Amino acid sequence: MRSILIIGAGKSTSSLVRFLLQESKVKEFKLVIADKDLQSAQNLTQNHSQATAMALDIFDADQREDAIQKADIVISMLPARFHIEVAKDCVKFNKNMLTASYVSDEMQALDTEVREKGLTFMNEIGVDPGIDHMSAMQVIDRIRSNGGKMLLFESFTGGLVAPESDDNLWNYKFTWNPRNVVVAGQGGAAEFIQEGQYKYIPYQRLFRRTEFLQIPQYGRFEGLANRNSLAYRSIYGLEDIPTIYRGTLRRIGFSKAWNVFVQLGMTDDTYSMQNTEQMSYRAFVNSFLPYSPTDSVELKLRLSLKIDQDDLIWDKLLELDIFNADKKIGLKDATPAQALQKILEEKWTLKPEDKDMIVMYHKFGFEIDGEKKQIDSTMVSVGENQTYTAMAKTVGLPVGIAALKILNGEIDKPGVLRPIHPEIYNPILKALEDYDIRFKEQEREFKGYNPDQLT
Amino acid sequence: MRSILIIGAGKSTSSLVRFLLQESKVKEFKLVIADKDLQSAQNLTQNHSQATAMALDIFDADQREDAIQKADIVISMLPARFHIEVAKDCVKFNKNMLTASYVSDEMQALDTEVREKGLTFMNEIGVDPGIDHMSAMQVIDRIRSNGGKMLLFESFTGGLVAPESDDNLWNYKFTWNPRNVVVAGQGGAAEFIQEGQYKYIPYQRLFRRTEFLQIPQYGRFEGLANRNSLAYRSIYGLEDIPTIYRGTLRRIGFSKAWNVFVQLGMTDDTYSMQNTEQMSYRAFVNSFLPYSPTDSVELKLRLSLKIDQDDLIWDKLLELDIFNADKKIGLKDATPAQALQKILEEKWTLKPEDKDMIVMYHKFGFEIDGEKKQIDSTMVSVGENQTYTAMAKTVGLPVGIAALKILNGEIDKPGVLRPIHPEIYNPILKALEDYDIRFKEQEREFKGYNPDQLT
Repeated sequence: MRSILIIGAGKSTSSLVRFLLQESKVKEFKLVIADKDLQSAQNLTQNHSQATAMALDIFDADQREDAIQKADIVISMLPARFHIEVAKDCVKFNKNMLTASYVSDEMQALDTEVREKGLTFMNEIGVDPGIDHMSAMQVIDRIRSNGGKMLLFESFTGGLVAPESDDNLWNYKFTWNPRNVVVAGQGGAAEFIQEGQYKYIPYQRLFRRTEFLQIPQYGRFEGLANRNSLAYRSIYGLEDIPTIYRGTLRRIGFSKAWNVFVQLGMTDDTYSMQNTEQMSYRAFVNSFLPYSPTDSVELKLRLSLKIDQDDLIWDKLLELDIFNADKKIGLKDATPAQALQKILEEKWTLKPEDKDMIVMYHKFGFEIDGEKKQIDSTMVSVGENQTYTAMAKTVGLPVGIAALKILNGEIDKPGVLRPIHPEIYNPILKALEDYDIRFKEQEREFKGYNPDQLT
Repeated sequence: MRSILIIGAGKSTSSLVRFLLQESKVKEFKLVIADKDLQSAQNLTQNHSQATAMALDIFDADQREDAIQKADIVISMLPARFHIEVAKDCVKFNKNMLTASYVSDEMQALDTEVREKGLTFMNEIGVDPGIDHMSAMQVIDRIRSNGGKMLLFESFTGGLVAPESDDNLWNYKFTWNPRNVVVAGQGGAAEFIQEGQYKYIPYQRLFRRTEFLQIPQYGRFEGLANRNSLAYRSIYGLEDIPTIYRGTLRRIGFSKAWNVFVQLGMTDDTYSMQNTEQMSYRAFVNSFLPYSPTDSVELKLRLSLKIDQDDLIWDKLLELDIFNADKKIGLKDATPAQALQKILEEKWTLKPEDKDMIVMYHKFGFEIDGEKKQIDSTMVSVGENQTYTAMAKTVGLPVGIAALKILNGEIDKPGVLRPIHPEIYNPILKALEDYDIRFKEQEREFKGYNPDQLT
């Protein structure tokens, strides 16, 4: 019987495994789930007759090669930096493979060899990157095949809390790695192009340069720029497009309040603070404010960032209890970002019954027959619970669907790939609709890049 | 005849060479000035009978060793990262040496060997570091030897334009490496301690957290925090001091206006912008502002940073001509910092007749006989012209004076040193007074760290 090897049994693997186990009876294959922690792998196989759990140390070459050799196709759900070890073995033993991560330079370097061997190495086949590529390219290719010329492409994705579980002033909870949320946007200016003009937003302005977006039934969101939008021009074949912009979605008002942390320096992850184990939340805040023998931390913060008496930002800060003098950070040698994460996790961790939500918003501006048009395309996916989250579902299902289509020879394009080709994205998007992952399109008046939407 | 070898004939060497040539007749030694560019070395020797210029490639080990072997003492005026090559040879051939740079880890690692051989490696013997160490330690040691306990140490240094040459709204011109000024403060939060509380200022707030200082006859200055003040606690033996703060001086209002560049992202040196060769100053500014088909760059900038109609910041920006649509950056693949430097150099370069100025301000707070006291100590040195600048003078003279005292055996403390010992700083500070580099002390009421001075 054919065998699918999944390496890495992390949070994002639940929906992938459930999907494959459901399909395994019809499509006839068995599933091997390998993780350095056997228990994690066993939690996913749940004694299913066609699934095996195994302990695998990815750095044990013999063990790794042996497992890969026995598989018909390999899915690496490891952290991105470990894929390359798996990939090299897959080349060696002629196995197709998939990852939900960005194509690294090392991975790209395997392309010639992979192609010569007729193998398919499918990457960026999760949600972002993944569903974003597929849903965008489907519309872009359609516009172009109808004779249209692309003028604008904007794309936003957000991992948020579902409306029914949204019960705090920030309208936000951690639905994925909190650390990534705290340090998001650092490491360089956001670069993009609007109406032919290159634009750069430094980290210290990032959370003040948002754009509002509306999704029927789900209300308003704000989009803030991702670091590099420009690379997508060559990936999507949009080299000459005058406007391309990619961003992250939050609920309205999140970014403006988050900017308080950015301005104070609380998101810095590059140095350790003194005495953080015994430091109170209040002392943590005070570390970033001028010394005063008389003024309160509250007053100094209000003055420093010019927060008015009636600004809702203040209530957001109070809700996080950041002025509490009794609660301790309790982490040794914490960076500001680690200390802030600790404070936020207390309030922003999903409760057992909470659900998450993935939101995607694309705008396509184009010219056809002398007329300018715009299509907005949106997708919202709500999680079932804390195991089968929207995140796990939107990452795992495209991976699983693609894996089966490659295993069955329905997708056989060779090379180190992204899902940007019609023969790949069409069948996968079609299959995703059965799981209620579908995009709604809306024609809108084309206004170009609309400065009225800037805040 | 004894011989002093100076390696590196850069900008800061002029006053050093002039001093040594003057002394060479009395003290009987000759001077060898080595630089990779022979012409630079010759410009300094000026056919003086006791001076020789030579071409020296610091990476040619044979040539370097030969030159060092022939010298009685070596002064390295090279960029800081190159000192270590010279230092290793000095150990090998038993030569004393001096640098005006911070002690690197590599340099520190030589300490045992240097001490065993009875050699003196004097570092940080320029202005900052250098004169700051000496003038501070002299007062600190005096306070302590009188039975005082140090409560506060603040120290500020600034390289500025002299009042008589100060003719722009920023009250600033480049008197040293412009690049260092443009990127100043980047690379990590400023850390210090005030009244026992650790404080951190991130780059995005650095230019908004200044302190005002007054120097009789020279008016008001503002001080902004240097990156690491805490290291000076162990260097100065002030481990338990509740307040220690080191900073940089500018004229009042500079930092608030400079913050415009910081906030826009114009000081970023980590990425190259597109099309900078043909980019106008105006387009450069516009790159950091939201796109608009109708609003002017001026309006967008005012709105983005909330600059009022009557704010002097605006006149400072206009003075730099940053909205000019005809002037080009003219640099290929420039980083924002490089482009900004280009714009600033047009206005902030010293004119041939301009003079520079070095300003230093120390505050010493202490308790003696149950009473709290404060001494403020200030030094202002004005340059003669563009060759014998205040910077060259305050760097070169302490180096030269120390070199002669080591050569003559008046300073013979062995080890990798800073000038923080009385037997070193006392004679050097005394000698500097002959060149009008002197500190004025003023007793002031001790208020501790004064929050009223924060802006």
